[in-house]
Amino acid sequence: MRCEILAVGTEILLGDIVNTNAQYISKRLSEEGIFVYHQSVIGDNPERLKQAYELAFSRADLVITTGGLGPTKDDLTKEIAFEYFGMRSVCHEESLNQIKEYFEKINKPLGKTNEKQAYFPEEAIVLKNNNGTAPGCILEEAGKVLVMLPGPPREMKAMFEESVIPYLRKYSKEILVSKILRVIGVGESAAAELIGDLIDNENPTVAPYAKEGEMIFRITARAESEEVANKLIAPVEAEIRSILGDNIYGEGETTLEDVLGSILVGKGLTIATAESCTGGMVAARLINYPGISASILEGAVTYSNEAKIRRLGVKEETLNSFGAVSEETAIEMAKGIASTSGADIGIATTGIAGPGGGTEEKPVGLVYIAVYYNNEVEVRKLNLSGNRQRVRERAATAVIDMVRRKLL
Amino acid sequence: MRCEILAVGTEILLGDIVNTNAQYISKRLSEEGIFVYHQSVIGDNPERLKQAYELAFSRADLVITTGGLGPTKDDLTKEIAFEYFGMRSVCHEESLNQIKEYFEKINKPLGKTNEKQAYFPEEAIVLKNNNGTAPGCILEEAGKVLVMLPGPPREMKAMFEESVIPYLRKYSKEILVSKILRVIGVGESAAAELIGDLIDNENPTVAPYAKEGEMIFRITARAESEEVANKLIAPVEAEIRSILGDNIYGEGETTLEDVLGSILVGKGLTIATAESCTGGMVAARLINYPGISASILEGAVTYSNEAKIRRLGVKEETLNSFGAVSEETAIEMAKGIASTSGADIGIATTGIAGPGGGTEEKPVGLVYIAVYYNNEVEVRKLNLSGNRQRVRERAATAVIDMVRRKLL
Repeated sequence: MRCEILAVGTEILLGDIVNTNAQYISKRLSEEGIFVYHQSVIGDNPERLKQAYELAFSRADLVITTGGLGPTKDDLTKEIAFEYFGMRSVCHEESLNQIKEYFEKINKPLGKTNEKQAYFPEEAIVLKNNNGTAPGCILEEAGKVLVMLPGPPREMKAMFEESVIPYLRKYSKEILVSKILRVIGVGESAAAELIGDLIDNENPTVAPYAKEGEMIFRITARAESEEVANKLIAPVEAEIRSILGDNIYGEGETTLEDVLGSILVGKGLTIATAESCTGGMVAARLINYPGISASILEGAVTYSNEAKIRRLGVKEETLNSFGAVSEETAIEMAKGIASTSGADIGIATTGIAGPGGGTEEKPVGLVYIAVYYNNEVEVRKLNLSGNRQRVRERAATAVIDMVRRKLL
Repeated sequence: MRCEILAVGTEILLGDIVNTNAQYISKRLSEEGIFVYHQSVIGDNPERLKQAYELAFSRADLVITTGGLGPTKDDLTKEIAFEYFGMRSVCHEESLNQIKEYFEKINKPLGKTNEKQAYFPEEAIVLKNNNGTAPGCILEEAGKVLVMLPGPPREMKAMFEESVIPYLRKYSKEILVSKILRVIGVGESAAAELIGDLIDNENPTVAPYAKEGEMIFRITARAESEEVANKLIAPVEAEIRSILGDNIYGEGETTLEDVLGSILVGKGLTIATAESCTGGMVAARLINYPGISASILEGAVTYSNEAKIRRLGVKEETLNSFGAVSEETAIEMAKGIASTSGADIGIATTGIAGPGGGTEEKPVGLVYIAVYYNNEVEVRKLNLSGNRQRVRERAATAVIDMVRRKLL
């Protein structure tokens, strides 16, 4: 099955956005054994859009469009496709109701233009959008398949995984089963070296991906059934686990904070945070775990020295002698938040996120993270690279991981 | 002048890399007044590559390729192009010497295959690569122009800026100037309706883009000089500003928290946050503004009732009578953080982010946000859609915007 991905949107041709959708879809299709022969981008222009459909269907069996399903006059992807296929569109009641509900929920009036988002030919398989107003659709005609997805990556990815992948699987005799292992604390090249020859494995394949501050290994087996695929995956997974050990923090779509959250709740431990440079990021991430309320007692964002003293009981002389960004301050912050909140675990971050404020002795990117637990405080010094936001995010990740490892 | 960008490389079609080159070139060309009508991606396949040239030159005057100039057998971009133009390539001595020098510098032997990188037709303008081994080139033939650039973004960008932009300037008499207005608190369709006919304006053009929780209007004028372009933009900008008023929070690449941060610092006001459902997100975003230390006194993440009572002085009877997610609690939280911290402004969030915890009366997505300022508390009730993370992010955005509007 030959596929072409057609992204629709003048904003891509103007260079305002990067076409990450094409990359995502290409990668996922190649994992499913479907090869993309062309990626194309076209503006919101009816004539060129029509030519793009003609061209795409002349060289591919499966055409996947992204973008142009919005409510405005510019959004023409659907309309030109229906014209190309000679199909009439009618109101898809279920979609209209979902759009209405969406607007009711956000307490805004339904624009007249939004109604057009619910129009599809009767022949279409309408794809529900659980993250926005634009439904997608699948059309089949004379052995050709057209899949239309919304442009915003969040909406596109969810619809692709929920509706398109299951649909496409009927075209392949073998199935692909993937298992994702999530790794933290090891860089990409180091992890690849540790894994060694496994990278060249053919079935299952082992593919590494670097993600912001972490790594993923995707093990993918091709087989006639899920059972057989899982049997192929098991020994390779065991080998990777024996090499990477505790650096593997989870599987699938879990996050580091989910893992820590479930450990905390499972052990009945309470936690409290004291953040300076990360300024609430650690607490915000912990609270993204839905069940965390039993464990997190409180968080203190103590960006100023005064707040560190008043809220956490950090000694003024510590701040004067060693500075706010120091091992000593981090230790007192972690102890302080644990004792004032009564939590079992106290977390602290203090550092120089930049862009200003760095010195020769304490450069931008210097962050101390500390964890109080069982009457002991462990502190770590980090030298992080990147801009302000990145330094802060990496520091937050590091301290969450530090707690996780402590509790294993 | 119509342009098509043709990226060559199977790795893009496999989704291993994102085609950021197309975005970079598109953006720079649009700034130069050259419009890209198509972006295409093709694999390292001689037959499809030849078809891609035929197609590209049938619909564009300027074709810019990226990738496929390397030393391996797979790298065919140049070879197929020379064949397409019916040109013979010969060794370009200067390029060969540069390649030799490069290998001497990195202390590696010159591979035989690297020599092919120095072969070009005599008609070509050869472009020096100051960051790698593959030279690029420009070919002109019967009013059509072909520019071939290396694939690695660092090499491509440098060559594009050093050689291609100066070359292309001879083709464009006009320049493009853009101005971006950032809008919050108005949905895409509502904003488009408010703007009305301005969307159809021709010079300057007005283009709306929806971004996570906000909107952007890009006003782009085409003129013979920056001065003239700015004069074209001014009245249209003024009209949009008169329609959208305070919903426009900034220009260009600024963020909402940058805007609030600079207002706070400018007015010498102090702020403190009390967060329940957002759990630190508001503080974390405020602290992303580098100059915020003078303004933010502290943040309290009070996820539990106990922390709300102890840290913020929320009354137990308020929590019992109205619940943690209520107007009354939000008001006491905002007042409480302002009074315990001594800040001029107190911010509070409390809500049900989901996925569990919702009831008929208080569904998932219900969030109260409150701002204390000048002895008054204003509270707002939000009904937000999306998953836990999104509800929390939108609540954080809403309360930051609420403070911004209060201080205007």
